[in-house]
Amino acid sequence: MITFYYNLAPNPMKVALCLEEMGLPYELKPVDTRKGEQHHPDYLTINPNAKVPAIVDQDTGATVFDSNAILLYLAEKTGRFLPPEDPVERGELLSWLMFVATGVGPFSGQAVHFKRDAPDPKEYAVNRYLFEARRHYSILDARLAGRPYMLGGIYTIVDMAVWGWARMVPFILGEDAWTTFPNLKRLLDEISARPAAQAAIALKDQHAFKTEMDEEARRHLFRHVTPQWN
Amino acid sequence: MITFYYNLAPNPMKVALCLEEMGLPYELKPVDTRKGEQHHPDYLTINPNAKVPAIVDQDTGATVFDSNAILLYLAEKTGRFLPPEDPVERGELLSWLMFVATGVGPFSGQAVHFKRDAPDPKEYAVNRYLFEARRHYSILDARLAGRPYMLGGIYTIVDMAVWGWARMVPFILGEDAWTTFPNLKRLLDEISARPAAQAAIALKDQHAFKTEMDEEARRHLFRHVTPQWN
Repeated sequence: MITFYYNLAPNPMKVALCLEEMGLPYELKPVDTRKGEQHHPDYLTINPNAKVPAIVDQDTGATVFDSNAILLYLAEKTGRFLPPEDPVERGELLSWLMFVATGVGPFSGQAVHFKRDAPDPKEYAVNRYLFEARRHYSILDARLAGRPYMLGGIYTIVDMAVWGWARMVPFILGEDAWTTFPNLKRLLDEISARPAAQAAIALKDQHAFKTEMDEEARRHLFRHVTPQWN
Repeated sequence: MITFYYNLAPNPMKVALCLEEMGLPYELKPVDTRKGEQHHPDYLTINPNAKVPAIVDQDTGATVFDSNAILLYLAEKTGRFLPPEDPVERGELLSWLMFVATGVGPFSGQAVHFKRDAPDPKEYAVNRYLFEARRHYSILDARLAGRPYMLGGIYTIVDMAVWGWARMVPFILGEDAWTTFPNLKRLLDEISARPAAQAAIALKDQHAFKTEMDEEARRHLFRHVTPQWN
C-alpha cells in the first residue's frame, strides 16, 4: 500500500497517473495547500519542503517527496515504465526526466505565478517566464517529432512527467499554443485517453479542495509576501 | 574517458567535483555561454536545452545532460557515492537530489537573475526569489543538524549537488547568511577542503571564459529580452 499525499496540481497528477498505470494500491491523503495544510508539523516530517506530492511506501517504509523522485522510485520498485537496461538508455531517461523536473516544471510554475498571481508591475517577469515555458515546450515538441514517446518506442515515466505539465499548456500559453506543438498535443491526447489518466483526472471528485485564491490561500502559498525572514 | 562540456557556473562545478571524486578520466570542452556557444547546432545535438553541463561517456556512448542527471548516472556507473541499496535509502537519495535539482538550483538561479541581471522595477521578484532561496537553504541547514552528510553518515552525490549551490550563498544572501546556516557552512567547508574540490575549483585556470556581462552576453543568456517567439 502507498500513502499518497496530493492535491490536483500538475506535479501530484503525474504521480496519480503513475500509480494508476502501475496498478499499485494506494490510499489518498489530501493536502489542501490553500488552507495551509502543507505547513502542518506532521506533514513536514513527510516532506520538509512543504509541498505536494509525497508518498510513504508502507511495503518498505520509504518516504519519497518531489514528483520526479517518486516517479523514479516507483519505476524502480516495479521495474515498469523504464527503458531497457543500457547506459545509453539510462542516460536518456535521466536527462529527460531532469529536463522536465528542473526546466519544464519550475519555469511553467513561475509563468503561472507571474501571469495569474503576482501584482503589477510584472511585465519583465511575465515575458521571461512565458518565453522560457514556451522554449521548454518547444524542445519537448521537437523531441517528439518522429518518436512516439520521449525515449522512443516505449511509454515511460518521462512521458508521465511530461503529461502533467502538457495539460497546462493552454492555461499558460493560450489555446492556440497547440498549433505550434502538434507532437506534444498528440502525446497529451494519447495519454489522456488511457484508463489510468482518466482515473487520475477523476481524483478531483474524491475531495473538495478549497478553490478560492483569497487572502488565506495567498498567505499560505506566497509566504514571501509576508516573510518570516528578510 | 568522459567528455565534459562545462563552464564555471554552479551546476557544471557539481559535476567537476563528482568526476574528481570518482577519479574518472575526463577531457574538458569549455562552452562559453556569454559568447553563445551553447546555441551552436553541434552543441544542441548534445544538449537540446542549450545549457551546461553535459557529458558524453566515451566508454558507453551515453550522452547525459543536466547536472543532477549526470551525478546520478556517474554514481550508478561507478557504484560509488551512493547510500546502501535499500528502498528507504533510495527514497531519501532521490528525494534530496530532487530537492536540490528542482528547488535549490532553480530558485537560487532566479534569485541571481533578478538580483544581478534584471532591470527595475523588480522588487517583488527579488523578494520572492531571495525568500525562496533562503527557505531552501534553511531546509538544507536543518537537515544537516546532527547529520554529517545529507543522507546521514555517508558522503554522497547529494552532498556534491549541495556543494555547488552552497558556494553561492554569500553572493545570493550576503556574507552574514552563514551565521544562520552553520551546518550548511560546515559541509561546504569540509567538501571544499577535499582534493577533489580543490581540483574542481582549479578548473578556472584551464580556460579563459568571457567575464563581461555586456550586450553580447545578455543577448545569448537572456533571450526572452529579444525573443524569437511571443
